[in-house]
Amino acid sequence: MHEQLKQQLEHAQAGDRGALARLISVLESGGSDAAILERCLRARHGGGYTVGITGAPGAGKSTLVSALLGEVLAEPGRVALLAVDPSSPLSRGALLGDRVRMQPHAGSPDVFIRSMASRGHLGGLAMATRSARRLLEACGWPLTLIETVGVGQVELDVASATDTVVVVLNPGWGDEVQANKAGLMEVADIFVINKADKAGLDATRRDLEGALASLPPERRPQVLETIATEGKGAAALWQAIRDHRAAITASGELEQRRLAQVRSELKGMMDALLANQVQRLFEGQDAHARVLAVSEGSLDIATASDQMLDLLYDQAAGRV
Amino acid sequence: MHEQLKQQLEHAQAGDRGALARLISVLESGGSDAAILERCLRARHGGGYTVGITGAPGAGKSTLVSALLGEVLAEPGRVALLAVDPSSPLSRGALLGDRVRMQPHAGSPDVFIRSMASRGHLGGLAMATRSARRLLEACGWPLTLIETVGVGQVELDVASATDTVVVVLNPGWGDEVQANKAGLMEVADIFVINKADKAGLDATRRDLEGALASLPPERRPQVLETIATEGKGAAALWQAIRDHRAAITASGELEQRRLAQVRSELKGMMDALLANQVQRLFEGQDAHARVLAVSEGSLDIATASDQMLDLLYDQAAGRV
Repeated sequence: MHEQLKQQLEHAQAGDRGALARLISVLESGGSDAAILERCLRARHGGGYTVGITGAPGAGKSTLVSALLGEVLAEPGRVALLAVDPSSPLSRGALLGDRVRMQPHAGSPDVFIRSMASRGHLGGLAMATRSARRLLEACGWPLTLIETVGVGQVELDVASATDTVVVVLNPGWGDEVQANKAGLMEVADIFVINKADKAGLDATRRDLEGALASLPPERRPQVLETIATEGKGAAALWQAIRDHRAAITASGELEQRRLAQVRSELKGMMDALLANQVQRLFEGQDAHARVLAVSEGSLDIATASDQMLDLLYDQAAGRV
Repeated sequence: MHEQLKQQLEHAQAGDRGALARLISVLESGGSDAAILERCLRARHGGGYTVGITGAPGAGKSTLVSALLGEVLAEPGRVALLAVDPSSPLSRGALLGDRVRMQPHAGSPDVFIRSMASRGHLGGLAMATRSARRLLEACGWPLTLIETVGVGQVELDVASATDTVVVVLNPGWGDEVQANKAGLMEVADIFVINKADKAGLDATRRDLEGALASLPPERRPQVLETIATEGKGAAALWQAIRDHRAAITASGELEQRRLAQVRSELKGMMDALLANQVQRLFEGQDAHARVLAVSEGSLDIATASDQMLDLLYDQAAGRV
């Protein structure tokens, strides 16, 4: 099994897109094969750049991403797109429509498009997306766009793990965006007001710039306007992304962001493993006996907690 | 220090309310003294009963609780009240008004009233409130009311750790209540529509009973009406609480609830301790070196996570 994964990885690294797609499915499933594969993925220093594109459903992100892909592909190079949908239970669900809409680019040998959906384990989607990003980097894809559907916590987690974060709004905003305003302000590097031909553009720009005024000038995101259905503004967005990349590379902020990303990802992995171990411990007799003892008053809960942690450490160290 | 805590506990158990208040402050502060005190607290089997009272701010909970205390004190016995306010940064803050309003009962030797406020550590308030509840039980207080301000996650966590949960609404509901409807439905044993003389009573009762109709009859909460400012309905509420207690005691559900409470509290304690240890580990050089190595591509993140967990276990076992 291990050998087979290694072979697939070699094929994916040699440019086999079928192998790449299969390996992403492995990461998505989150099983023991995913854990083995993870151990084969190392960062390539400076080897890949990731752009997150997030915003409320209906903001026109997919159309905007499609227009953006057109701009990216006007120059030589390859680009991967991960479309992340926490609300879709399976890979082939809600995003199929978006993928069809993308088909002009999906046919290009320089584009790899893949939707990522939840397989039901909490936090699993954000982790799988980060792993897929590492896989793409390890396979030499120089640029990855990560499009998230919605502005909930999972989407913000995913977006905040990218190098440049684009937040897409519409004239008039939306309830969902208003509710997550603080979170969006915190992660956005570039704001795009898409559907800029719709009523309410000026008010939205005023609202947005008012909210951004509290940030120091060097951290204040650019605000762009696009009409994605007509391709208007896509070139300016691609330029803004390249400008942001150049600026954070020169200032050293990119390096700090990458360290912060690794740090948070490493912590997330440890937290998930520890939570699993605690969960397993609570399914056993040792936990049940202690819960009973505390409930009956023959043991205090702090001592019970200490004893359970000792059990956890012993199990982890293979001494039980 | 240990000796002093033990003495205070003995005094509190002998009925010294000053000592009891000081020990609750110790638990609230969450330091090493709190950990020591925790180890002295054991459940008394069947020795205490806890009623949670929750609902949106302005629902009239404090007035209702005051009326309820009047009913409780009409019979012989003692009662403690913990008023929990996650939004208040200090004990003597927002709830002072409520405590003043309670003064008729606060003067009684059979009543102990205390507000609990956050000292800034996440989840700390819910844990401190549970510890205070155990302290009250260990000191022989047979009944504890826990009033929470608001219907957010912390409040629901606190409420769900009590034996009978009363949710207070008003005619017309409120936005905050609507947003947390599912959570409230899940924890409520008794619904109270307070301010029942206000417009919209019938519509609220219809909405509520419509939402509750999906529950099996034996799990469907009673819906009561009160006008707390006039004391109307308080006697019926106290009777409903006693009926609920009798029913879950007879059916064995109380025992199951207590086990589930201990289980979730024990898990919460372990999670908090592990999170602290991970946090400490990330403040050290070992973590920093690995984050750099992953970032530079000389180490994969899954192996880094394994190594960090081994360090954590070694530190915990005192081998480093």
